[in-house]
Amino acid sequence: MAQQGLDVLLVTDPANLYYLTGYNAWSFYTAQILVLPCEGEPLMYMRHMDAHGAHRTAIGIRAERVIGYPEQIVHRPAIHPGDWVARHLRDAGYGRALRVGYEGDSHFFSIRMFMALSATLPEWQLQESRELVNWVRLVKSPFEVELMRAAGRVCSQAMRTALEALAPHRPQNEVAAEVMAAQARGVPGTPGDYPSIVPMLPTGKGADTPHLTWTEAPLPVDSPISIELAGVHRRYHAPMARTAVLGRPAAVLQRVASATIAGIEAAFDQVKPGATPEEVTAAFTRVIRAAGYEKESRLGYSIGIGYPPDWGERTVSFRVGDTTELQENMTFHLIAGMWLDGSGFEVSEPVRVSATGIEFLADVPRELTTINVRNTTHGHRIAADRRTYATGLAGQPTQGIGH
Amino acid sequence: MAQQGLDVLLVTDPANLYYLTGYNAWSFYTAQILVLPCEGEPLMYMRHMDAHGAHRTAIGIRAERVIGYPEQIVHRPAIHPGDWVARHLRDAGYGRALRVGYEGDSHFFSIRMFMALSATLPEWQLQESRELVNWVRLVKSPFEVELMRAAGRVCSQAMRTALEALAPHRPQNEVAAEVMAAQARGVPGTPGDYPSIVPMLPTGKGADTPHLTWTEAPLPVDSPISIELAGVHRRYHAPMARTAVLGRPAAVLQRVASATIAGIEAAFDQVKPGATPEEVTAAFTRVIRAAGYEKESRLGYSIGIGYPPDWGERTVSFRVGDTTELQENMTFHLIAGMWLDGSGFEVSEPVRVSATGIEFLADVPRELTTINVRNTTHGHRIAADRRTYATGLAGQPTQGIGH
Repeated sequence: MAQQGLDVLLVTDPANLYYLTGYNAWSFYTAQILVLPCEGEPLMYMRHMDAHGAHRTAIGIRAERVIGYPEQIVHRPAIHPGDWVARHLRDAGYGRALRVGYEGDSHFFSIRMFMALSATLPEWQLQESRELVNWVRLVKSPFEVELMRAAGRVCSQAMRTALEALAPHRPQNEVAAEVMAAQARGVPGTPGDYPSIVPMLPTGKGADTPHLTWTEAPLPVDSPISIELAGVHRRYHAPMARTAVLGRPAAVLQRVASATIAGIEAAFDQVKPGATPEEVTAAFTRVIRAAGYEKESRLGYSIGIGYPPDWGERTVSFRVGDTTELQENMTFHLIAGMWLDGSGFEVSEPVRVSATGIEFLADVPRELTTINVRNTTHGHRIAADRRTYATGLAGQPTQGIGH
Repeated sequence: MAQQGLDVLLVTDPANLYYLTGYNAWSFYTAQILVLPCEGEPLMYMRHMDAHGAHRTAIGIRAERVIGYPEQIVHRPAIHPGDWVARHLRDAGYGRALRVGYEGDSHFFSIRMFMALSATLPEWQLQESRELVNWVRLVKSPFEVELMRAAGRVCSQAMRTALEALAPHRPQNEVAAEVMAAQARGVPGTPGDYPSIVPMLPTGKGADTPHLTWTEAPLPVDSPISIELAGVHRRYHAPMARTAVLGRPAAVLQRVASATIAGIEAAFDQVKPGATPEEVTAAFTRVIRAAGYEKESRLGYSIGIGYPPDWGERTVSFRVGDTTELQENMTFHLIAGMWLDGSGFEVSEPVRVSATGIEFLADVPRELTTINVRNTTHGHRIAADRRTYATGLAGQPTQGIGH
């Protein structure tokens, strides 16, 4: 804050609230804001019913500094909680010429809140904070590294559950059910937590569309099924993507899978303190270009605490132009999603920059998983349920590529 | 839009995008916006990788009207997708004096996006749209009513699963795992979908805090366990709350439960076309006041399509001052949450205003569910797992009231 010349920082991102105060509840659908002065005690505002019990998790702020705005002003056309908060701040001595930073790309800082603060506190000089707290979160403490490793253990278990749940024509939502249960259960000694994003299962032709959520459509045969999910422990996220085929993968899919895995492994080899995301990405790009592929989207991003709708930290991105110097205990999701027309292959790892290179936080084989649907022998240790599901449910079976 | 004098409406709320176009993907963590003119064809902007496959769900807009902004401008400090979108809109002929409505309280319309549009299109007269699309969504079509009933069936099944999963000292996350799986599975013929909000299980002393999410803490004995969850079908939500006690409820909890159930049932009796939310709420308030209780927060809100982080429509609220005239096929979550210090009781129903009164969309007994933990006989048909879980996991057992 001092470097940015800020007197005050307004924090609304739930991940930043958790990082700074410990506050952890699903209350971010109504307005809430931490007013953090460079010197002195912060104030935090939220709906009355949430402020009442905030002290149960918000151990970093005194209970009497958590202020509840009245229930009567929730979801009203003519008044907004921001009006009430702004007047309270004025009464608390904040009606002065102050340089005030705000999170302009936070998901839960509404325009009405911003405009209410601007209108009622015109003395403020508002300044976009450029994800200040997110950048502070980039290097993890040893304690946070342990939480990330715990998330990685949950991730491995959730991905194995997903791969084992695949069966021909099984409705996608039944696979999602098993994955979500595994994410919540965690592993012995390491309970799970809810993920910021539901399991993504783009399949068949839809595998070219990265953020489609599951439906009841039956799993296709001979066609790619991508799985992207996270293991979570105490809000820390370790995400992972894998791709599987029930039956025989088309030659085009096998080619893209081989090139993508070789590419991301070349990128892993470049990760170490002092390297840059640009250099790591270049290693990937060299390999896939040699195989005749291009990838426009980034190869990864920083991870840590996550709340819906995202588990990324919105700071470092692995792409041309990002020259952030990697440091020990940064954690990333390195993800190679190749979305071609009518097909797709995804593989990724949650990783930590170690003292000398890279640490993988989870442990699941990277290959295109092919599951022989005519008998039970196949490459990986997949004990999938071999029932063939009837396709009588609503929704058309997705036709795969190569058919 | 004509009534508000709008030439153009900017839509960012994922529920509104789904309502207007069918677009349904977990892509709302990066900027996306529908530009809807009063006359002529809309344009929709999203990240390139999402625009690519948007036509798979966005059946209400031609594929060539979905414009992808470059991947390179995602999560950058010095440039924002809003800058790119604003320039594209100017090139598309939108650089004119237009009255443009925007959703000022939408969760996914960032301040940076808003400021980029304002700066690059200064000719626009921007006007807060006061949840215009949300208000249009208030009365459901017959097709939507069927989707809400389907969501109600999933809700009943998920709540029964939750109640049956309760057992003394069982870690909360294991109950959440079973609930989340049930929500995804749905019931035969009616697949589930992901809920906008994870299952909430405030327990013991934490039962005074409505939006605490589950942890691995063991379920308490003789102390209230509130459960709030939704059944979801094709993004339509039917939420429900119930409260249970493993063992013997304290007298104070039994009293508040009886008064609250009597109060909400008095409110149900008032629901019919022509009544107002204020009148319905007054019936509740009369009953609980006679029993010595007060409730500050609202008694319910409109429901329908939901995306994280909320399943409410942000329109009608059941409280003093809301004089909206109820109409047939409005759907609401009527919820009486009584959060006392160190205790709490919640009960709710997802309902439809019928031609003459009220239709309950789900079917689970409303009483305070008491589960005899010393033998298997108890009031409701609860076939709970009777194992007693060891309390060796991290986290203190929550002590209940009356102890």
